[in-house]
This record gives sequence, structure tokens and C-alpha cells, in this order.
Amino acid sequence: MSANLAPPITLLTDFGMQDTYVAEMHGVIAGLAPNVRVIDLTHAILPQNIRQGALALADAVEAFPDGTIHVAVVDPGVGSRRRAVAAEIGRWRFVGPDNGLLTGVLRRWPRQRVVSLTNPQFFRAAVSRTFHGRDIFAPVAAHWAAGVALDAFGNPLETPLIQLDWPSPTRGDHCLTGQVLAIDHFGNLLTDLTVDLLSTHVPSGAASVTVLVGEQCVGPIVGAYSERPGQLLALVGSHGRLEIAVESGSAAKQLQLGVGATVVVQWSHS
Amino acid sequence: MSANLAPPITLLTDFGMQDTYVAEMHGVIAGLAPNVRVIDLTHAILPQNIRQGALALADAVEAFPDGTIHVAVVDPGVGSRRRAVAAEIGRWRFVGPDNGLLTGVLRRWPRQRVVSLTNPQFFRAAVSRTFHGRDIFAPVAAHWAAGVALDAFGNPLETPLIQLDWPSPTRGDHCLTGQVLAIDHFGNLLTDLTVDLLSTHVPSGAASVTVLVGEQCVGPIVGAYSERPGQLLALVGSHGRLEIAVESGSAAKQLQLGVGATVVVQWSHS
Amino acid sequence: MSANLAPPITLLTDFGMQDTYVAEMHGVIAGLAPNVRVIDLTHAILPQNIRQGALALADAVEAFPDGTIHVAVVDPGVGSRRRAVAAEIGRWRFVGPDNGLLTGVLRRWPRQRVVSLTNPQFFRAAVSRTFHGRDIFAPVAAHWAAGVALDAFGNPLETPLIQLDWPSPTRGDHCLTGQVLAIDHFGNLLTDLTVDLLSTHVPSGAASVTVLVGEQCVGPIVGAYSERPGQLLALVGSHGRLEIAVESGSAAKQLQLGVGATVVVQWSHS
Repeated sequence: MSANLAPPITLLTDFGMQDTYVAEMHGVIAGLAPNVRVIDLTHAILPQNIRQGALALADAVEAFPDGTIHVAVVDPGVGSRRRAVAAEIGRWRFVGPDNGLLTGVLRRWPRQRVVSLTNPQFFRAAVSRTFHGRDIFAPVAAHWAAGVALDAFGNPLETPLIQLDWPSPTRGDHCLTGQVLAIDHFGNLLTDLTVDLLSTHVPSGAASVTVLVGEQCVGPIVGAYSERPGQLLALVGSHGRLEIAVESGSAAKQLQLGVGATVVVQWSHS
Repeated sequence: MSANLAPPITLLTDFGMQDTYVAEMHGVIAGLAPNVRVIDLTHAILPQNIRQGALALADAVEAFPDGTIHVAVVDPGVGSRRRAVAAEIGRWRFVGPDNGLLTGVLRRWPRQRVVSLTNPQFFRAAVSRTFHGRDIFAPVAAHWAAGVALDAFGNPLETPLIQLDWPSPTRGDHCLTGQVLAIDHFGNLLTDLTVDLLSTHVPSGAASVTVLVGEQCVGPIVGAYSERPGQLLALVGSHGRLEIAVESGSAAKQLQLGVGATVVVQWSHS
Repeated sequence: MSANLAPPITLLTDFGMQDTYVAEMHGVIAGLAPNVRVIDLTHAILPQNIRQGALALADAVEAFPDGTIHVAVVDPGVGSRRRAVAAEIGRWRFVGPDNGLLTGVLRRWPRQRVVSLTNPQFFRAAVSRTFHGRDIFAPVAAHWAAGVALDAFGNPLETPLIQLDWPSPTRGDHCLTGQVLAIDHFGNLLTDLTVDLLSTHVPSGAASVTVLVGEQCVGPIVGAYSERPGQLLALVGSHGRLEIAVESGSAAKQLQLGVGATVVVQWSHS
């Protein structure tokens, strides 16, 4: 029998790795749930960029076991009256501020069970007004992982979780228009044109499919980076998003484009 | 019964994350204490900056369980005759070079029990003269976590641990003068004006309290970032230090100030 | 009895830490092998730089327990017909693309047992064509760590693993000529002049030994950084390589030299 049946806890923050803030969250969890694995989802969300955090969280969760507790802390309102929440959404659990960080997850898995974190019994003894990641969210996640029931943390939320405006691609005549949502470490441009949208809108018998970004024609949607050595290309990436890349290069650098740039998929009938 | 009763080991170094040096310390510990959790405290201490390491260590330890073994390696004297030590200080344990890295911890928890690491039985088989983090400190920490007694590592230290000069804030007429000790990822200026000092010196009935940094008047001490949207502010941060911040911005950038800048708290009587 | 007898899994990639790619590999492993420790070897390999990855891997493995599973993913050919492999080499195990990443390891531990990863039973349910780290290599490593036999993953490789050209130092008249292979976080220049080569070629009774790099005379080989305070020096570093350093400084900055620079060790007879 396994000594470690509890699903892991993950941490997503905008804290960076230069300070000890992230480690202090690990330390609090280690004290309360010593057998639970803790995984750093990312700590490179830009300071206070809730939207970036919401996207990263939504795109990453499917790689994690059912029941994983995702602690997400991009929290410009820390110490104010913004709510702190614990939620069951999709197959996972989430802990963090109620400020829109769960928007991406809720878009894809709308069913939710949420409580407001009001029971101080599960907080650190002294709660600062500047670091709820360490003082509220980490200990609540640890107690939850250790078997405390969701209801114990507080009452069900009386009004819905906050959601950010989340622009959707638009359908035109023989085309879908979306935008660049993020740029990854490789300089790939990740878009809001998902494989689901493409399947729904682009006819399977289309004679040709062409991707355009900015003023540039990228060409058809290929299957793998290596099909276009050294070249600009479009493919469906590992998060199910249309992605503009340069094989062994950086599309962001080559195109000089960033978040918000327009991406169009056009097709003609056969 | 838990399979993992041992407290965690933490690692603080100036190694950065680009090389495999940190991972090699993890590897050595994994071989000797496979059930012990290892947490990266930070590896972003500037090369050879013992003072920065000492501060980060002292500010982080309270988030960790009693008995946690903190391995701290900022070690310009590696391979020289500088001593290597294991110490019980406060509620935690520490392993590293004797070069002042424990100054911050000793300031707050002066009682100590320290041995010199002289017993090679607990070192790696081959000890380099350039990487004691991997060859001495990591294996000693792993053996300690696995139950070896402190005495086994060597004899009690015959002369005190080295401590850095550690400037203290000064009390003036209706004011306390301190300095900026560090700048965090958010650009917050962290000072040596602790909540304890403020409680001791600033009269609870003071009619007004004002914080000044450089030439700039910051205003009163507020409770949370969100009380001053977009503005420069002073508050007591999560490590109990007076901190100068800009809500959703960077105080370091806005003020163009760095470590060593003067910070004054002034008050008038009611 | 320990609950965690399995050796750890390590991850080496060129993914960086800003995205959630690395975390997704951790998530997949957590679901399949919840008790196995996972250590980040490094994720700072430059994008698509197989040679840098091969060197980092070969230099790090000796710090890890026998049987450790090293997952190495620098994979410009992902989604193409390049092979995916699992290998037993030396005292460790390796999983990754067959593209030369194992060159450094194979140079030092030539004996190998390798299979091609062709059994999809051990892959993620849906395998992308852009992220085999998450979809093939991580789950195979997790299953391997959990006790699946090497043979189960696929058939023995029919042709040898790909190896990169790996330049060797050359022996001249009273000298060895090598090159800088890497620059570490401290600005130390790490060379291909290993302690084994030096022992073999430099006479133990040599009257003087001098190291030269670029146009610069560095001096003799010393034992520790601290023997030359503030100065340029040469010593054998923690990976058994001759290394050019500046005590409490950066040799790379001071010398303005990089990977590929020539390093010469000269000696005269007594």
C-alpha cells in the first residue's frame, strides 16, 4: 500500500524565484501535510497579471491527477476585502483569491462547488495582510490534502466567482479570427484558436487552410515543428491551441509580435 | 502512521538555477535520506553575497517546521581553512560554512549548539575543494535528517560562530532611522525597521507617524497594499519588516533607490 | 522499511521555468508514480542545444543514486521519425529522444542496454506531436520507476544510439590543448581537460605547469579558489574538469571568452 495516496498540491504565483516567498509556502505545507507532494506550476506570472495566471492554470491542469489541489496566488488585492476561496472545478481542486484567476478553468469546466475561506482554524496562527499565499492558501491546501472536508473551510459562496472578460475568436466568411494569448519560452505564439474551435468551424473537406498572423502569411497547419526546418509554421500545440512557431527559432523575435496580435485561419471550399 | 516524519531539508545557495549544482545536492540527499523532503529556499543569492544570504535565511525560517535542516551555502572560502559547521539554533537546524551566513538567525535566536564538521565518515567518498555543498553539507544534512546525532559530526566549536557586522537602526528625537536591506521581486524595499522596533519606540498614542525614504515622504504606515491603489506606500510586510512599496508597481524603479538607502519613521505626540 | 525505495527521477530540458511545461511532466509522474521523488536537473539548457544538454547530463549523473532515471528532453525533432529510447548506461537509467543527448554519458560509460519506446500502453492516452516530454518520456519514466521492466517499453535498438562529434583535447610537445565547453553561473570556464587526462599526460615530476587561455597566462593549477583572492586562476573543479575562474569574480567577464576558446596546459621537465 502506498504511503502517499493524496494527490499533489501545485503552486502558481507571480512571486518569481529570487526571494524565499515560494519556499515559505512549501515550508508551511511541509509542516501540515508532510507526505503530500508539492509541485511548482510556475512562479513566473508577471506581477499582478491575473489574466496570464488564469490562462497558465487552465492550460496546465489536465496533466495533473484527479483531485490535485492547485493553489493559485496572483493577488493584488491581498489584505483587502476580496474573497479567498476553495473550489472543486472539473476533476481538480483550487485555492486562492477570488479575483478572476479561475476564469480559464471555469470556461472549460463550468460546474463548481465553492466555499469562502472564513474559518481561521485552518490559517497560520498569525495572518499577515500582505502574504495570504503563506498564511491562508498554503495551510488551507495542506489541510484539504490531509483530509479536511471542503465545508469545514467556510460557507458556500453566495455570489458567483469573479470572471474576467475572456475574448472569444470570431467566425467570419471562410475564416476564424483570434489572437495571441501568450508567448512561451521558445518564442512560440500561443493563440485562442483551439483545436475544438478549428474542428467545429473549418470544414474537414476544405481545399486549403491558411494561417495569417499580423501581415504575414504563415501557410497551412502542419503536424510537427520538424516539417518546416528553420521556417515559420503553424501547428496545434500541446495545450490544444493553434500556435505560431519557428522551427529551432523564435517566432516572437522573427515576427516582432506579442500578446494581442491578430491571428486568422482562412479556408476555401473544395 | 506517517512514512515521512522527518522534517524537511532546505537549500539556500548562490548557485543560480542554470547549472546542475543544486540538483547534485538534491541527488546526494536522495541517495542518503530518500524519504526526506527537500525544499529550495532560494538559489538566487548574488554570488558570494553572504550578507544577502544571512538575511534571506533569517527571514524565511519561521515558515518551516521545528527541526527543519537549513543547508546554507554561500561559500567564497570553500577549500580554505574556514570551518564547516552544523548548528541547532532556535527551533531549527543549520548546516554550512562558518562565514557569517548564520548572523541573521543568531541575532534573533542567540542560543546555539554547534559542532565543527570534521568526521569524514559523513562526507561523500571523494570531497572536492570547490563544492562542499554537494560533498560535505548535503550528505551531513541527509545523515542528520536520517537520525544521526549532532555530536557524531564533530566536536563542539571552540570559538564562536563568525558574525557579520549587522547595522542596527538608530533612535533619534521622535524618529527611528534605518535602511533598505533588500529589494524583492516586486520592487518592494525591505528595511531593518522591524515591527518589534516600531512597537518599542513609536508611542501607541502618537498623533501622526510618517515614513520618509531618500528625499521622499511616503506617508503613514498603512495595513495593506490595496489601501493606496497605484501609489507609494509603507506597510509592515510578511517578514515583520517595514517595507516601502508601490501598489501594482515597483518602488525600487519609481524611487530609483537600492540597498543601503536611508528610511526614517517620524512621529509627533498627540 | 522505507516507503520510498525507488530511486529518483530527474528532469533535464530546454523548457525554461517561465511556462508550465516542466510542471506538467511532474504532474504526469505524480499520477503514475506518486511515491517517486522527482528532481529538476536543470531546465536552462539553451533551446535545442543538444550538445549543452549532453554535457550537463554527463557531468551531473555521478551525484545521483544507482538506478536513478534521468529524463533528458532537448528535442528539436519531436513529432518527426527520430527514435525515442530508454537506456541503461553506467549505474543509471535514461529516457529521451535519440538525438545525441546521451553522447557525454556514453563517452564515459560505453556499456548500454537500450530499447526503442514503441509500446503506447505506457504513453499518455493522447500523444501530442509537440510535447513528448509530457506524453511519452515522463510516463515511461514513471512506469519504469514503478517497476515495469525495460523490455516492456519496446524492442532493443537495432542500430546504435546517435552520438555527437565530441572533440577531444590534443597532446603536443609538453602541452595539452583543449577548449572551453561551458560557462557556469559564476562565470567559471569549464574545459574538456579532465583530471584523468591531466594525470595521464602531465608528468608528476614536472618542474612547472602553466595554464594559458586565449592570449592570457593564468598560472599554475591551484587547489582552491581562495588561494588566489580576487585573481584569475586555474583549478580542477567539482566535475573533474580544469576550470578557469576568478575568485569572487567572473572569468568569463574578465577574459571576454566563451565556449570554444582554446585552453592550453604546458609543462617543463624537472
